[in-house]
Amino acid sequence: METLLLNQQEVSELLNMPDAIKAVEEAYKAYNLNKVQQPPIVSIDVAEHKGEIDIKACYSGISGMTSVKTAVGYWNNPEAYGLPTLLATICLFDGKTGYPVCIMDGRLITEYRTGAAGAVSAKVLARKDSKTVGVIGAGSQARMQLRALAEVLTIETVKVWSRSKEKLAGYKSDIEALLGINVVICDVPEESVAEADIVVTATPGKKAIILKDWIEKGTHIIAVGADMEGKQEIDPEIFSGAKIVVDSIDQCTLKGETQNPIKAGIISAKDIHAEIGEVLLGKKPGRVNDDEITIFDTTGMGVQDNTTAKIIYDWAVEKGLGQYLRLI
Amino acid sequence: METLLLNQQEVSELLNMPDAIKAVEEAYKAYNLNKVQQPPIVSIDVAEHKGEIDIKACYSGISGMTSVKTAVGYWNNPEAYGLPTLLATICLFDGKTGYPVCIMDGRLITEYRTGAAGAVSAKVLARKDSKTVGVIGAGSQARMQLRALAEVLTIETVKVWSRSKEKLAGYKSDIEALLGINVVICDVPEESVAEADIVVTATPGKKAIILKDWIEKGTHIIAVGADMEGKQEIDPEIFSGAKIVVDSIDQCTLKGETQNPIKAGIISAKDIHAEIGEVLLGKKPGRVNDDEITIFDTTGMGVQDNTTAKIIYDWAVEKGLGQYLRLI
Repeated sequence: METLLLNQQEVSELLNMPDAIKAVEEAYKAYNLNKVQQPPIVSIDVAEHKGEIDIKACYSGISGMTSVKTAVGYWNNPEAYGLPTLLATICLFDGKTGYPVCIMDGRLITEYRTGAAGAVSAKVLARKDSKTVGVIGAGSQARMQLRALAEVLTIETVKVWSRSKEKLAGYKSDIEALLGINVVICDVPEESVAEADIVVTATPGKKAIILKDWIEKGTHIIAVGADMEGKQEIDPEIFSGAKIVVDSIDQCTLKGETQNPIKAGIISAKDIHAEIGEVLLGKKPGRVNDDEITIFDTTGMGVQDNTTAKIIYDWAVEKGLGQYLRLI
Repeated sequence: METLLLNQQEVSELLNMPDAIKAVEEAYKAYNLNKVQQPPIVSIDVAEHKGEIDIKACYSGISGMTSVKTAVGYWNNPEAYGLPTLLATICLFDGKTGYPVCIMDGRLITEYRTGAAGAVSAKVLARKDSKTVGVIGAGSQARMQLRALAEVLTIETVKVWSRSKEKLAGYKSDIEALLGINVVICDVPEESVAEADIVVTATPGKKAIILKDWIEKGTHIIAVGADMEGKQEIDPEIFSGAKIVVDSIDQCTLKGETQNPIKAGIISAKDIHAEIGEVLLGKKPGRVNDDEITIFDTTGMGVQDNTTAKIIYDWAVEKGLGQYLRLI
């Protein structure tokens, strides 16, 4: 038996956003059908080299695979070594035997499955007529969120703000070229949020950028940036009275945006309306009227890597891509 | 930059017991020099396929590598799929950049580094004139322990007992052929332990096989089998008055043989004399006279995989073995 190796180029040829959205939906449903074993995320802090390592592992009884993703962030990489800051490797093991069936680069999969998460939430939590998206942040995840939203809604205008002003022109030209959507560059975050049907926050921020007063009735907020303790992008008061949906209650109350209103005593975990998989499975309602403010807090789960990597593996086998090697 | 892939055959050509002993000594020292980041072991129970997955991750500032080992045990594998029960894959990432430098089969490394652990303990805890080893269990780890002990002491006689009588003849012929040591097959465990200078327990047992009355003054016990909650091989009363050394206090009090005397209230964690790295570093004494009963409880640490895999990687680069692939 052999192990299939897929490099970044091959993964890139096989990966597309509609598949990633399908994979993330399957992931969320499997999680809330209790078909998933997903141990806590393991982190290693390599302070001496300004690096952090996160290991997300997961067995899914639906995909039939165990996945182990090692994702690293090394902030000296671009300048000191000419390497990307973020790298990731995913190993897939046969769920029935533990045999390593595939090892693939995981960086693009992480980007796509994180982008897809916002779109999956928008399908059940955003107003169907959502046309305007306010985007906070102008990095690669701010792009991915838009690419995914454009698959599930007819987006006409994007209003982007970023603390890094120098990134805004690139964001505008990329999104306009890729998606044909008009991008408005905003001077202040309030302008980005004003009249937005959907607000996406995708920054590494540690304090609130979006204030409660700015958010209009009917807005859907996709909070992507906060994924560890101490991170924050929105005013915790926004959670008060909003319909709060998370990918994982365990993760979001500790590492997601939801940690902040809980710490501030504004909500408690029982005020979380649902995990997204419960909504997708019809166990709990999504948006029920045009006035609700909805929040989707996503920290990223191992099961998203698992189902997305499985789709890539299946495509690679079907199309004969990659290199087989006898590991054992 | 490319990633080196090493299959089981190549690892086997590069791996030898003296190197494994050196690597495990380095691992234990690094751990007690606080040069190691070693998060808790992550386990996934795949009950529907009789499988278990353990992920041991570690960064070592000494080896300069982050290692992630995924080890699986699937009890249906041999009969249902013609595969070994135990499989393992190790990924090594550059500690400075997070780049995946090497992916290698990890099954043999696990066996060797576990065997080497007992020998490292014997160097500082067994009597120097130890000649007779009582072995409980006749599986592959019972063989590895002997192979490693024979590197550090002049062993003349092995007295082996196993619940699986059918394995004993094979154990005897293997050890005699490999090490030229006389192996005596014992009918009862008491016979195996009698007059043994060193006792090795390497079974998957869940209750005491070795009783306190059988253990003579001056004996060194290497407790290898217990590595998860509920496992047990020796009478917890043996811990009372013995010099207890462990690989990791955190792991052994929860998953090692040491869990049992603690649960029984016979000792508490503060009765543990040392972690083995403290002894190797000279921070705490090893054996100080010929009468002490010493116990080494080992559950296996990620840092052992880390340092052993690093030696294999270095050898592979030096000898030009393995296959390079551009993953990123």
